[in-house]
Amino acid sequence: MEDQKKHKIEVCYSPQSFDLYKTEFEIIVVIDVLRATTAICAAFDNGIKSLIPVSTIEEAKSYQSKGFKVGAERNGQVVEGFDFGNSPYSYLNPDLKGETVVLSTTNGTRSINIAKNYDNCQVVIGALTNLDSLSTWLVAQEKNTLCLCSGWKDKFNLEDTICAGAITDQLLNSGKFESMEDSSIAAKYLFLSAKENIFGYLKSSSHRRRLKRLKLNEDIKYCLNPNQTTVIPILKGDQLVELKDY
Amino acid sequence: MEDQKKHKIEVCYSPQSFDLYKTEFEIIVVIDVLRATTAICAAFDNGIKSLIPVSTIEEAKSYQSKGFKVGAERNGQVVEGFDFGNSPYSYLNPDLKGETVVLSTTNGTRSINIAKNYDNCQVVIGALTNLDSLSTWLVAQEKNTLCLCSGWKDKFNLEDTICAGAITDQLLNSGKFESMEDSSIAAKYLFLSAKENIFGYLKSSSHRRRLKRLKLNEDIKYCLNPNQTTVIPILKGDQLVELKDY
Repeated sequence: MEDQKKHKIEVCYSPQSFDLYKTEFEIIVVIDVLRATTAICAAFDNGIKSLIPVSTIEEAKSYQSKGFKVGAERNGQVVEGFDFGNSPYSYLNPDLKGETVVLSTTNGTRSINIAKNYDNCQVVIGALTNLDSLSTWLVAQEKNTLCLCSGWKDKFNLEDTICAGAITDQLLNSGKFESMEDSSIAAKYLFLSAKENIFGYLKSSSHRRRLKRLKLNEDIKYCLNPNQTTVIPILKGDQLVELKDY
Repeated sequence: MEDQKKHKIEVCYSPQSFDLYKTEFEIIVVIDVLRATTAICAAFDNGIKSLIPVSTIEEAKSYQSKGFKVGAERNGQVVEGFDFGNSPYSYLNPDLKGETVVLSTTNGTRSINIAKNYDNCQVVIGALTNLDSLSTWLVAQEKNTLCLCSGWKDKFNLEDTICAGAITDQLLNSGKFESMEDSSIAAKYLFLSAKENIFGYLKSSSHRRRLKRLKLNEDIKYCLNPNQTTVIPILKGDQLVELKDY
């Protein structure tokens, strides 16, 4: 028999499927391992004050004209006219300390905004780099939790799924959560078979090939290296802030 | 470097995502392990002449009124007013030999019809029960191949994905095919970790729980037992026929 007292931890593979999964969740974890949510965690680890995720390049330009520091990425590359894209290393620049940063990316900021528009949910940022810290916090919340993978242009991707599977695994291991969806069970299985060597496991993944062509191998290594920070970015209105400032 | 001469073998997890994957394929394998495509394979193994897949209950009723033998299933159960649903055992009835059968199911017949409407593709039926026979034929065709999982009401499901992963694994092992999509790579990984004990691996899957509640455990065991038949059902116009009659 299913234990009705447990909280749900489920995984949605792509923004395209969000409508099928969005019922009954109180916390949504947005995941875009390569590279938006990893870059966001790096930025908060570096001491930025807040981050405004925007969906379109037009919005990004508008903020730029007001003097904000703005990152914009499309198809893995920095958009012309912007200082940086979504390389986590760009967000480790000491000049960003205490600043409000604006970011628009191909997939990640879009899924943040989808989650934001879903009522009565807390939206937090997940990556492999803040895995243990985030999972520990989620276990303590005891709320129904959905991991929303950003995917690649609405398609499933392996690195976001493995990160979601890692979170799912920790929440299930707490004994307080259960997964009812096959997508969540499969994500956990994929994480368990990947965890000894995530970098090797992903060597044939589409986005690793894409970024490798763009000579972004150092970025990939950074993004796939778990637990480099304890920050938990959380959405407060239209801005991401660190959990301690929420 | 990617070898441009290889043919594609890719996996689409659900009819909802079909539009993202449908380019450039010459063969689509429709998969609904629990239970539509397994039942269809059983029916041809039992010697039916042809099978007409229909999407709606209204169409199914219309065929019934013309004297056809008609199966209809929704949410795992036989629809009231029909003689059978999609239990493979129903299709092993000797009375069906030589007959044309009509079938409408929750997910499987819908994905057959989605594939049918995609131009210039051969549509074949895949299940664990005809895995080796189908995979051997696909390798010999040397065409770009998409496994279209039926899923459950547009959601990812584990049993269809594992079947698609098993087909992908065999085609990749031939050396003539390659997978570029993460969904295909993940399906193969899931199959590889499931293959020693598919029944056990799926014990917590949502559809196994659903069918178990409906006391359909014998059906599940049948559906998850690979290579019980060598038939390859293929779509010819609006009807499925056995490959030898194509």
